[in-house]
Amino acid sequence: MGDPASISAEITAAAWRALRHTGPAFTILADPDWIAPHAPIAANFADGIPVIPIPLARPATPGQPDTANAPATIASIERAVRLVQSGVAGAVVTNPIAKSVLQAAGFPHPGHTEFLAALTGAAGREIMMLASPELRVVPVTIHVSLRRALEMLTTDSIVRAARTAHDALMTDFGIPRPRLAIAGLNPHAGEQGRMGSEEETLIQPAIDILRREGIDASGPYPPDTLFTQAARPGYDVAICMYHDQALIPLKTLDMWNGVNVTLGLPIVRTSPDHGTAFNIAGQGRADAASLVAALRMAHEIGLRRAAQPSIV
Amino acid sequence: MGDPASISAEITAAAWRALRHTGPAFTILADPDWIAPHAPIAANFADGIPVIPIPLARPATPGQPDTANAPATIASIERAVRLVQSGVAGAVVTNPIAKSVLQAAGFPHPGHTEFLAALTGAAGREIMMLASPELRVVPVTIHVSLRRALEMLTTDSIVRAARTAHDALMTDFGIPRPRLAIAGLNPHAGEQGRMGSEEETLIQPAIDILRREGIDASGPYPPDTLFTQAARPGYDVAICMYHDQALIPLKTLDMWNGVNVTLGLPIVRTSPDHGTAFNIAGQGRADAASLVAALRMAHEIGLRRAAQPSIV
Repeated sequence: MGDPASISAEITAAAWRALRHTGPAFTILADPDWIAPHAPIAANFADGIPVIPIPLARPATPGQPDTANAPATIASIERAVRLVQSGVAGAVVTNPIAKSVLQAAGFPHPGHTEFLAALTGAAGREIMMLASPELRVVPVTIHVSLRRALEMLTTDSIVRAARTAHDALMTDFGIPRPRLAIAGLNPHAGEQGRMGSEEETLIQPAIDILRREGIDASGPYPPDTLFTQAARPGYDVAICMYHDQALIPLKTLDMWNGVNVTLGLPIVRTSPDHGTAFNIAGQGRADAASLVAALRMAHEIGLRRAAQPSIV
Repeated sequence: MGDPASISAEITAAAWRALRHTGPAFTILADPDWIAPHAPIAANFADGIPVIPIPLARPATPGQPDTANAPATIASIERAVRLVQSGVAGAVVTNPIAKSVLQAAGFPHPGHTEFLAALTGAAGREIMMLASPELRVVPVTIHVSLRRALEMLTTDSIVRAARTAHDALMTDFGIPRPRLAIAGLNPHAGEQGRMGSEEETLIQPAIDILRREGIDASGPYPPDTLFTQAARPGYDVAICMYHDQALIPLKTLDMWNGVNVTLGLPIVRTSPDHGTAFNIAGQGRADAASLVAALRMAHEIGLRRAAQPSIV
């Protein structure tokens, strides 16, 4: 469901219209009264959206988030995870939530990703990958201040993120020998220590470890030229040192086709790469492309994992 | 001249071919034997490149920088500045240098920009703007480590950069009421302090000061959505908190058409936005688009400043 005051009802309805005759089919976990104005409800996906009812405490007003409905948003995520864990569904695709709304209602997690990791017993192993048609990025640190990200960055955290990304590209994306580009942290990747030393003290050692494991990792690359049109065909994923180093190029290139994939979880989970967009909710202006891409990617990853049961 | 082992000879020759019949005309300060294999030398710009001779210590080998030629590179910059200061030339356009090569020869400046500021008595007032057809960005901190950039960021430095950018957009770019978008520092612009506090303690106060001065400054904006196609038409320049926050979106969008303009100097100075590209020097593969754009922009800024002598 996501936040019921967000664009999630309209993009879910638009995604159903885009996919109803081709699949992948999905079921929404939400209040039927909330989705009904946007699309027909039906058990058969070709006729309407199948709904597993999660009642809202109060009717949602587009653009006006309401903490009274936070428990329903949280319940929707929990139920979806349980359905996948029990084998009833193949993947969880989450609509956008507003962390501030959920946190005001007592939700202790920094975001979806960390909540899903906790629900599946994988806390601390979750890694966020953003994938668009032009670029895949994995930020080593995520939802912390830039100052804290610098403190948290370690050789071990870089190796762990890169290894998880490498394994996922093989298992979930069908790339036999993934090429990993490891970004530097500082301008010009530090220019041999002239503008920062983390490239030498943290990042190069991580690359050395990865290469000894047989992973095709290279870098550290100057961050400002790593995402150019000429550079992007040279790698399958860029391992980035902080949130915006990864998210700025991804969203600058393509705001509406990015998919957020959580790696390192025992379940398949994707989500659109945009937020709640409260400012345009209910106006019919939201673009469902990212949700459609997230649904398709969840389906493809689920099929690949099903074909390799021993790896899962 | 730039670094004589770089792509500068070939892009200068290509820029001359692109501009010889239309202008703007330029003179190169370089060793005639170095440029002659790439383009004819002539006093009349339509017939060849006018050259003011700066002899190299040793013949340059493309792709193999030589500290013996660093003094010639430095002399080329100094002579160019003096020619503009004396009114003989209208602007300085610099070709790429390799800071490591110059520094090995005793050059104490972090880069061109700081050297030009020192030469023109404007040290500490220089501001770097990068301008491409799609985006203009001004990083408040430049060639320092990310860690040091966080330490250096102050309300005053943000105000100073924004004010200089505002004035330059009016004077040099002919924009009557420039719109400044001020970026946040942290993911999601800190999300009301949940991921960092600099937006509240440093950046918002800077915006308040700028607005009280009548400058159309807004923000702080989440860095990852500030550079999207939908957001870019909303401002004339993005004031960025660190080097890669500005350079990643600019280069990701357009690697070869960016121009580096130094603001806050008493002379007009532009340069291409790429580096020495030693790896492709001498192969005829370098793209001269950025140098051509830099030459055109220097000319346009010079014309605008000449029409407003009291402001300069």
